Amino acid sequence: MLLNRIFNDTDKKWRLIIKALETAVGKDGVVRRKEELLTYECDGLTAYRQRPAVVVLPRTTEEVAGAVKICHDYQIPWVARGAGTGLSGGALPVEDCVLIVTARMKQILDIDLENQRVTVQPGVINNWVTQAVSGAGFYYAPDPSSQIICSIGGNVAENSGGVHCLKYGVTTNHVLGLKLVIPDGSIIEVGGSIPEMPGYDLTGLFVGSEGTLGIATEITLKILKTPETICVVLADFTNVESAGQAVADIISSGVIPAGMEIMDNFCINAVEDTVKTNCYPRDAAAILLVELDGLSVEVAAYKEKVAEICRKNGSREITTANDLETRLKLWKGRKAAFAAAGNISPDYFVQDGVVPRTQLANVLEKIDQLGAEHGYRIANVFHAGDGNLHPLILYDNSIPGQWEEVEKLGGEILKLCVELGGSLSGEHGIGSDKNEYMSYMFNDIDIETMQWVKQVFNPDNLANPGKLFPTPRTCGEAANAKKIA
Amino acid sequence: MLLNRIFNDTDKKWRLIIKALETAVGKDGVVRRKEELLTYECDGLTAYRQRPAVVVLPRTTEEVAGAVKICHDYQIPWVARGAGTGLSGGALPVEDCVLIVTARMKQILDIDLENQRVTVQPGVINNWVTQAVSGAGFYYAPDPSSQIICSIGGNVAENSGGVHCLKYGVTTNHVLGLKLVIPDGSIIEVGGSIPEMPGYDLTGLFVGSEGTLGIATEITLKILKTPETICVVLADFTNVESAGQAVADIISSGVIPAGMEIMDNFCINAVEDTVKTNCYPRDAAAILLVELDGLSVEVAAYKEKVAEICRKNGSREITTANDLETRLKLWKGRKAAFAAAGNISPDYFVQDGVVPRTQLANVLEKIDQLGAEHGYRIANVFHAGDGNLHPLILYDNSIPGQWEEVEKLGGEILKLCVELGGSLSGEHGIGSDKNEYMSYMFNDIDIETMQWVKQVFNPDNLANPGKLFPTPRTCGEAANAKKIA
Repeated sequence: MLLNRIFNDTDKKWRLIIKALETAVGKDGVVRRKEELLTYECDGLTAYRQRPAVVVLPRTTEEVAGAVKICHDYQIPWVARGAGTGLSGGALPVEDCVLIVTARMKQILDIDLENQRVTVQPGVINNWVTQAVSGAGFYYAPDPSSQIICSIGGNVAENSGGVHCLKYGVTTNHVLGLKLVIPDGSIIEVGGSIPEMPGYDLTGLFVGSEGTLGIATEITLKILKTPETICVVLADFTNVESAGQAVADIISSGVIPAGMEIMDNFCINAVEDTVKTNCYPRDAAAILLVELDGLSVEVAAYKEKVAEICRKNGSREITTANDLETRLKLWKGRKAAFAAAGNISPDYFVQDGVVPRTQLANVLEKIDQLGAEHGYRIANVFHAGDGNLHPLILYDNSIPGQWEEVEKLGGEILKLCVELGGSLSGEHGIGSDKNEYMSYMFNDIDIETMQWVKQVFNPDNLANPGKLFPTPRTCGEAANAKKIA
Repeated sequence: MLLNRIFNDTDKKWRLIIKALETAVGKDGVVRRKEELLTYECDGLTAYRQRPAVVVLPRTTEEVAGAVKICHDYQIPWVARGAGTGLSGGALPVEDCVLIVTARMKQILDIDLENQRVTVQPGVINNWVTQAVSGAGFYYAPDPSSQIICSIGGNVAENSGGVHCLKYGVTTNHVLGLKLVIPDGSIIEVGGSIPEMPGYDLTGLFVGSEGTLGIATEITLKILKTPETICVVLADFTNVESAGQAVADIISSGVIPAGMEIMDNFCINAVEDTVKTNCYPRDAAAILLVELDGLSVEVAAYKEKVAEICRKNGSREITTANDLETRLKLWKGRKAAFAAAGNISPDYFVQDGVVPRTQLANVLEKIDQLGAEHGYRIANVFHAGDGNLHPLILYDNSIPGQWEEVEKLGGEILKLCVELGGSLSGEHGIGSDKNEYMSYMFNDIDIETMQWVKQVFNPDNLANPGKLFPTPRTCGEAANAKKIA
């Protein structure tokens, strides 16, 4: 029933929509006042802003389904939003949309330690999962920098990564099953509570689909046993290339660290100015942080190996930490790197690209050149083991034209990553920030194929329109395109 | 162009199809003689047989695309077949079909050791990948029992597992990218050569889709570093339940073995009669084989832990092997278990089901009861760490009615697995063997959703019709079903 056809009067239509939404999620679950909507105008990609028409705060799968069904009936676009910490604008509202916010869906629904799985609502904060099971000796591996504030629903939508994803894989490797509301308001379940599921892997398809196929309302996650020992190795280098080479050498030696991160001199000084770890040598060109986990004997052996490789690559000083307090101190600066950049520069833009590990030294040099050409300082902090870069472009948004230039520079960095055999995104997603770059990586048929799949779930393009794909297609367009292809 | 509409004369139509296929793949690539077609009448599920109309043996992606395009133009069903070792009838021909066999697509196209990836044609044998890179210290992890004869294309279609998948994951965790021919004859590429790819995970969607979405013609695989040390622990038990408990205890102790397998008394005696390992105590109710890999210090520590857990669970004797020769000897019986069953019984049927690890002891007891009720001996050999069972039902195909009874018993075992929170298949796939059981695990909407996705790639249901889903749908039916839902 496409009710919008019968309305000429937009206000009247919206009054009916609001009323229906209030029935679906309760009066206290509908936010309409302009000043209250301000919070929801952007996510972590603050350069883009758009006020939604209305925000709804459902509590259950059924309430989400109710809200989505109303959007379907009135053919109103809707966008799902978790904690709003995403960095690619995946949760950016679109004009006249209903924003479905999971802030009241914060229940851990089931903990099954014997089978190592936890089922949560999408609004549950990433870190809460580990907190809920750590007493019993388990943890949830994917750990975005924002893990104390970002939500699992958003992690699923963007297929989030984190420091520990080098060894343990990104979100998709840790999601066993999902309950979903698809854009016609139906509730479906994909995957299950064990990894071996026959049929098409719709769970894998949904994870990372950035809200364009539906919204997850229950998520079953795999949890891992807490390792016996964790050790952090900090090595400093007099040039970034040597740090990059050490990373490549560590991996090819057969060691798989839990995480392996590089920060350049600018970041080192920015974090030392801000959070004062007093651990990072300010004159180092780069520091490498390596986290090792496992049995004590294993970690001890790997620690030796890592230290030896770092020394061979010219590291001046190597610090190791086994106890929790010192480890946290060594990580503190890395975790605060983005915030520190924000303290040093009026504004910064975090890019997220990937290169094959073997291209690390090469890409860093070229990013430096690109920055110089455009006249912007670029700081580097990145998941070195995965080849996942996070160049921070520093700029001043109050100077007219700078944002546009920075955006262009960011695009050139991504183009470079793809040219070197890499990818447009390691963990932040495409969202509204990078959809125009998808053609760097995919040809028309590739993108067309993804859009055919999108049509299955989201034929009217109501769920998160304008995201992920460069040119959204309506159902008819896709059908025609398919015929022509 | 749907040419079949203009033909009333079937023979004439087939003459034209054959001629077109000969042009597409060469005269020597088309097999038509009845006696030559015999080989292709079944795969590893020998109970079902169907002669294809014609077999084609393409050499390249383009030749595959040519053959598929001809099937599309004439609206002829087609089935892809690798080495034909699959156990669920996934490569079973359908009536009047073109069987596309990858036996001449056996090239390793690219080896990139630095980035740990290998690109192969689908006919490459699983074991060849490891052979190609082992000299440089790498290997390909998924290792089905049939690894010396099964092909990577078939592994991708069925998402094959193996002994080492406990620690390293099944095929889908090792496929980075695919070149595909989809049922309209188009060539598309999904995924890539690095793990971090934005957009929908179509690679994951395709792996395990059992030939219903298209055929993979180039496959990029992840390879791993060969571990420093490998050790096999063999423990015997006086009852199967204790062996099952030992498995659960090993996993919850935090040890992740590379593989963990149980064989029951019947299997032990069958393999000792056949391959004579002289390692497996004939009076044991069950043996547990645990493979540990990693650094020497790590393996040594885990070996102690595993032995201690086995002893605590009543193991009488524990043998360990570090050198290659003894390790192979310990594994030999396990690898030969299916063949040994074939020597003991005129026929056997291998079932493939999964239960949560915590249900192992329970399910084994119930399977035993089911066997007794139906009057069949059921031998058990299984990937215990994953809860992936392979009950072997022993029967005699020459006795009328036995196969039908065995099939029914196999279905009851699967129903039991699903009731205990498990799955219809751990690694063999659904194929033509289990599609009628899909409703045990999925409701109508779940199956409908998968079929909508199928429609995107395979709208005319020409690629492997009748497989995977209980009731295939035409495009129109699916469209109507969707409207009604």
